[in-house]
Amino acid sequence: MGALLYVVRRRRRAREKARLASGEASAANKASRSQAATQRATASAAKTAASVYGSSSGQRASVLRQSSSFNLGKSNVDIGGVLGMDIGGTLAKLVYFEKKEPPGGMVRTCSRDPLVTMKRNLSLGDLNTREQKEALMQFYTFMDTQEQFGKAGVRDEHLAYYSHELGGQLHFFRFETRLMDQAIELISSSTIHNSIKALGCTGGGAYKFEDFFQKRMGIRMLQMDEMASLVRGLQFCIANIPGECYAFEPEPVKGTGANGKGEEEPMASEQDTFRNMRMRHMSELREKVDYSHKVHRSRTELLQSYPALVVSIGSGVSILKVDGPAKFERVSGSSIGGGTYWGLCRLLTGATDYDDSLDLADQGESDRVDMLVGDIYGHGYNKFQLSSNTLASSFGKLVTKEDPREGVTNEDVSKALIVMVTMNIGQVAYLNAKLYDTRRIYFVGNFLRHNNISAQRLAYAIAYWSGGEMEALFFEHEGYLGALGAFLSSGYEDPDGSSDEES
Amino acid sequence: MGALLYVVRRRRRAREKARLASGEASAANKASRSQAATQRATASAAKTAASVYGSSSGQRASVLRQSSSFNLGKSNVDIGGVLGMDIGGTLAKLVYFEKKEPPGGMVRTCSRDPLVTMKRNLSLGDLNTREQKEALMQFYTFMDTQEQFGKAGVRDEHLAYYSHELGGQLHFFRFETRLMDQAIELISSSTIHNSIKALGCTGGGAYKFEDFFQKRMGIRMLQMDEMASLVRGLQFCIANIPGECYAFEPEPVKGTGANGKGEEEPMASEQDTFRNMRMRHMSELREKVDYSHKVHRSRTELLQSYPALVVSIGSGVSILKVDGPAKFERVSGSSIGGGTYWGLCRLLTGATDYDDSLDLADQGESDRVDMLVGDIYGHGYNKFQLSSNTLASSFGKLVTKEDPREGVTNEDVSKALIVMVTMNIGQVAYLNAKLYDTRRIYFVGNFLRHNNISAQRLAYAIAYWSGGEMEALFFEHEGYLGALGAFLSSGYEDPDGSSDEES
Repeated sequence: MGALLYVVRRRRRAREKARLASGEASAANKASRSQAATQRATASAAKTAASVYGSSSGQRASVLRQSSSFNLGKSNVDIGGVLGMDIGGTLAKLVYFEKKEPPGGMVRTCSRDPLVTMKRNLSLGDLNTREQKEALMQFYTFMDTQEQFGKAGVRDEHLAYYSHELGGQLHFFRFETRLMDQAIELISSSTIHNSIKALGCTGGGAYKFEDFFQKRMGIRMLQMDEMASLVRGLQFCIANIPGECYAFEPEPVKGTGANGKGEEEPMASEQDTFRNMRMRHMSELREKVDYSHKVHRSRTELLQSYPALVVSIGSGVSILKVDGPAKFERVSGSSIGGGTYWGLCRLLTGATDYDDSLDLADQGESDRVDMLVGDIYGHGYNKFQLSSNTLASSFGKLVTKEDPREGVTNEDVSKALIVMVTMNIGQVAYLNAKLYDTRRIYFVGNFLRHNNISAQRLAYAIAYWSGGEMEALFFEHEGYLGALGAFLSSGYEDPDGSSDEES
Repeated sequence: MGALLYVVRRRRRAREKARLASGEASAANKASRSQAATQRATASAAKTAASVYGSSSGQRASVLRQSSSFNLGKSNVDIGGVLGMDIGGTLAKLVYFEKKEPPGGMVRTCSRDPLVTMKRNLSLGDLNTREQKEALMQFYTFMDTQEQFGKAGVRDEHLAYYSHELGGQLHFFRFETRLMDQAIELISSSTIHNSIKALGCTGGGAYKFEDFFQKRMGIRMLQMDEMASLVRGLQFCIANIPGECYAFEPEPVKGTGANGKGEEEPMASEQDTFRNMRMRHMSELREKVDYSHKVHRSRTELLQSYPALVVSIGSGVSILKVDGPAKFERVSGSSIGGGTYWGLCRLLTGATDYDDSLDLADQGESDRVDMLVGDIYGHGYNKFQLSSNTLASSFGKLVTKEDPREGVTNEDVSKALIVMVTMNIGQVAYLNAKLYDTRRIYFVGNFLRHNNISAQRLAYAIAYWSGGEMEALFFEHEGYLGALGAFLSSGYEDPDGSSDEES
């Protein structure tokens, strides 16, 4: 399948190259006709943004000029503005932009978000020369050959998204940070880095690999703050990508729907939803409910709902309180995150593939490993409403056995690990949400990719603990928000994003 | 050493038996002379207790009569009042009382605590007949032969404590709950259970093993609530055992002592301590400080300091908010507790002895396993004051290696496990303390036994996170508070302790 896609893409690129060579106006060229109007819009957008974010457009323009003038004796072309990276402890995430006409042909040149307009015009608007187009074509072709990375590098094809606001397609790609050396080797052996002078990058790797990128490829890292990038990406997704943000609810029960038709609204209003959940809590939530019904929430409401908590689960966990579009604070975190799951899973089960281990976990029975309240009491601890099957001690059952491995499968161990990590993150998030009085908790980060076990358990746990007062929310692009933020913020503003937040 | 002690104790018992047989007044007999006065004191104490705890003395007396009349065709003697048990998921804890003269010979018959007086008079006062004394002697002799349990059963000799308030010695004994069957087998093969009709017991095992105790030994479990027993035991220890409760501080630095003599007071006043810690926080606490200086806190202050948080770490974790002497609520908990450490440790390192594994952990380097902020950033994440050696992801470093086991010792794994469990408990405790506005956090439970790694890290973390506003406190009898509470509450009040708390 991958090979087939690869061939199809190569052929498409070849056709586009041929068109360029024959002087035929490419699809991208059409957009350039509106350039004069666009520049006027940009000046206005920059002014608006400056008044919102407290930074003058003059300062931004100066930073932009500084970035643009950066040159290490390479080609004069710089296509770095189409890229955004987020290099974490475990995974490196790359977002790249491909200017093209919208799928339906309907062109919109403006966004309501002044920052998006600035990105479009200041960072992406200037990619219409023949050299730039050739450099871009070379880059896209290179990315299409991602199979060279082997299984360690993956393009998340299903997440590709056409942004009307930006006037092009966003692509999402990831690889393991530990393979950075090989990745750079591969890029260095091509010529694409000659057309990339500076690149918006966030995550610890933006600092750790700074010299590496500079020396090996002559690419300057425009270091963007990790948390600021995350919040920027998150808000872009909510505002611009329909169906991006979702929650889980119990499967609708016939005859109890809010619309009186024996069905539930797929997108009930916020008030209805919370009322509904509170009622459920009284009757049902004491027993485990299957939170597997995916529902979307109104983005208008989400965008106006502050404060909110953002729980970013990568190798470790960071917890932010967000008080406004670019106003946030890192309030908490946890060392028990995705790295804990996968590190322990590798040690305990010998697993070599992360996604496979999650699939295996789905088949496991954590009760063979975990100590439940029923194991200690013989039944529930009714006085404190702890039912018999409440988890009392993760891996605690192994303490009570002569041979801890006996009768325990790798699937059981994987399941118990994922439950342990998930429930702990849920609890730390819930306590922080209570402390900071936030009703919405956004769970993001690559730990949640390909991982419905965790998402559904978090949804249930947050609803249960809060008595239906709080809700867990998830994102389709959960692992790419930081990279998206780095892409969106780079090329036109202070590299460290310090003017855009309070901490 | 154990064998020697055993011989010494056997000889002592033999001498006492001989004295009993020859009609010589035993030390215990002397106490019986004050029995009439004692009964008067009891009636008054019961009245006081009833007014404090909202239960009439008539009700208590009725429960007492009910307990006393319980008989399964065994001997008429019941020495169950000298016992208290706490059967958890991993460990069963037993407290037993030995009436005897105080070490220095100074006899006090009253306690300021009406509940202690009630226990002494109603439950322990009536053990002076020849049959009772013989039954007790038989029981003590049996307990002295604890070597029969092998290493799984341990008497914590160093914790034995003479209580003037109760007029005798308290002994502390534990064994693994999974060996309950063998323990009961052993007791059944003796005759001691014939003199035990009912026994105060708490923890899940009080319910799980109820039938087992009844059918195999004819012993009725007087089921005491787990949390109520814990709080009762904790408050008894603070009030009555000098030096019981302690904290850890950084090693005193010459010339900075609060007393102006270049030394610190071993027991500074509360105000001084907190002021001192706040000042330290400003200058030193950003870097890891060695919290290894054990200091005691004034019990008068501790007894008056509400609300307080109690974090009980057994197989799992329970967190209570305590608002008064017998007013508490279970507010939170965690499944990542002692069972998680030991269960995972057994799986990962093949360890078979818990104490040895803790000693090994002390030699380990968790940095070989954990991902630090420096591993991700190359240095600290200064914007959010996360220094280079801040733990970012427990076991996260294993994700980045080709072979996760390479260069990693069992000691490293044990250390990383104990750090993971400890820091997580500390964080959940801290968040709850913040939520419920408690300055003092009592960490108790057997996870902290023989475990200075955890206690000192908790002390440091709580001081650091709270900016010196909160303090972690520990107990010498950390694992026996529940059993002590069950012992103290049994024989004179409602078995489930429901009148003594609010939840």
